[in-house]
Amino acid sequence: LLSQVGQLTAEVVKGRRAFLVTHPAIERFHGGAVRSSLEAAGFAVTQVVIPAGERQKSMSRLTDLIRQMLAAGLDRNSVLIALGGGVIGDLGGLTAALFMRGIPYVQIPTTLLAMVDSSVGGKTAVDLDDAKNAVGAFHQPRLVVIDPDALSSLPIREIRAGLAEVIKYGVLGDAQFFDWLRENAVALTSYRQESLAYAIRRSCEMKAGLVEQDEFDTKNLRAALNLGHTVGHGIEALGGYRLYRHGEAIAIGMVAACRIAESMGVAEKPIADSVVQLLRIVGLPVRPKAPVDGTALLAAMLKDKKTTEGTLNFVLPTRIGHVTLQPVPSDLVLKIVSEL
Amino acid sequence: LLSQVGQLTAEVVKGRRAFLVTHPAIERFHGGAVRSSLEAAGFAVTQVVIPAGERQKSMSRLTDLIRQMLAAGLDRNSVLIALGGGVIGDLGGLTAALFMRGIPYVQIPTTLLAMVDSSVGGKTAVDLDDAKNAVGAFHQPRLVVIDPDALSSLPIREIRAGLAEVIKYGVLGDAQFFDWLRENAVALTSYRQESLAYAIRRSCEMKAGLVEQDEFDTKNLRAALNLGHTVGHGIEALGGYRLYRHGEAIAIGMVAACRIAESMGVAEKPIADSVVQLLRIVGLPVRPKAPVDGTALLAAMLKDKKTTEGTLNFVLPTRIGHVTLQPVPSDLVLKIVSEL
Repeated sequence: LLSQVGQLTAEVVKGRRAFLVTHPAIERFHGGAVRSSLEAAGFAVTQVVIPAGERQKSMSRLTDLIRQMLAAGLDRNSVLIALGGGVIGDLGGLTAALFMRGIPYVQIPTTLLAMVDSSVGGKTAVDLDDAKNAVGAFHQPRLVVIDPDALSSLPIREIRAGLAEVIKYGVLGDAQFFDWLRENAVALTSYRQESLAYAIRRSCEMKAGLVEQDEFDTKNLRAALNLGHTVGHGIEALGGYRLYRHGEAIAIGMVAACRIAESMGVAEKPIADSVVQLLRIVGLPVRPKAPVDGTALLAAMLKDKKTTEGTLNFVLPTRIGHVTLQPVPSDLVLKIVSEL
Repeated sequence: LLSQVGQLTAEVVKGRRAFLVTHPAIERFHGGAVRSSLEAAGFAVTQVVIPAGERQKSMSRLTDLIRQMLAAGLDRNSVLIALGGGVIGDLGGLTAALFMRGIPYVQIPTTLLAMVDSSVGGKTAVDLDDAKNAVGAFHQPRLVVIDPDALSSLPIREIRAGLAEVIKYGVLGDAQFFDWLRENAVALTSYRQESLAYAIRRSCEMKAGLVEQDEFDTKNLRAALNLGHTVGHGIEALGGYRLYRHGEAIAIGMVAACRIAESMGVAEKPIADSVVQLLRIVGLPVRPKAPVDGTALLAAMLKDKKTTEGTLNFVLPTRIGHVTLQPVPSDLVLKIVSEL
């Protein structure tokens, strides 16, 4: 699909100026194909290659990009193309959302995590100091191009991290998909194309379904997607966003959510063990890699956007394939996390 | 109305944490009333007073505000209150649009210009370098509170500048209102409350009507509001945003648009003279205060968001009360401006 990006983009935007944002490794692997495709479809392309890493999701990088777009003479009909993982997608999406109050953008995710998560749903953001996604907007991409071929160059740790979100979809909304994942876990971690393609398609379908019902995250439907994210974001923050990949922290957060659900009697029957088992087969962590400072974890969780006026709201599984949203006392959260 | 802000806000938002953004002069005149009203309605208020002036519409000020909101423990149900003129409204609105991907905000405009223009329509933005409103979003206020009493402390130059936009509404869409303005010009510049209140109400009605039909400015309906703004923004930029108040530049821009419409045969009969006459009665400039460098003006106009791929699109009156959108050759624009 990467060689069809130009044609696909031309069908959905008016202008013929494109601003391509990517990072060095992706540029090396896929930049040429995407650029040629855009140029063949009549686009004048300005390419900006930014360093890899979460630190790029910053106000200063955002400001630089907008400055470069102004210098390139882009206007409101121009298109921004975000070619890369979640960082490029979130940053590129917000840049497109804000440039002249919003221009169209195209997501071309190149990691499994971005393919199944951030590329769908229109959530864009940058971080501020230690507050993840503190500055952001809802801005739907005009087009999302997912080419599973791009995964062949992705390290196994990134495949595993992406699978954490894939497993999340099974736990939160589709028991049959959860079973399929158990049967295909080895195929997935062996980069089997057909298995990955199916897992991506099913994940995107589920995410799109929830987003369509609750685009702006105000009805507690989209909130289901945050399964594992309250503890997960906290643990990620405590690790300075270096110790864990996002998916690894989410895996641990999902186990915590299952154990909390069991402990509070929200889960109809034990579920944590089967989730732990699948995460282990895939090669994901199921407990923190280092002891967790409870006070620091609580502080990090309270900074999360899902917090309202000091209450921790959790997505808790009632059974595989079904979740509910509930406030959880912070001492229970800390107890469960310390016992993982 | 300022003493009812708390109660009115409580009716339209869920949370009870409020972040009040204002500037020193306004704080002195109206800060106490608004704060007490919010507190009486049960809000915990964090107030931030920023310096006056367009330079505050910056990415760095925006970043600071979001940092202060995080420190104050605001969440997605909290509300931002923008108490001030267009700068406070544009900056506060964008801050609310971006904090945790968007929280509700309330506009309390305190200048005539902000009352009749920026407080309605949900356009929010900050400037970047010399590009006005280069970074922004559409984010509708949950509530707009306009208290004409606030105008009694506004300098006459600001009343006049606001009247430029009021006159614009007459020219672009309501010949009867234009006639009313001619009859009431002296009452308006004498701060007569009933006249100002009517002029504000009619202006807001007209703006809201256009915005409702074209919220995201994609159908060329909302574009009518840009009458006078292509040349106006250019002249404003050339004056370094110091030589002219926004409304003064728009007055000059409107005269230019009328003359262009006449010169191109777009105007059904001469209209510029009657517009000039009304602007003069109100005390607004009808030509640049200093000779204009054509090349610099063209460059400034081409940076404008209304430009698409190098074409200058103008809102041109066909008669009083009716406009059309047309590309205009840049040499004609420069000729007309040089002859004003």
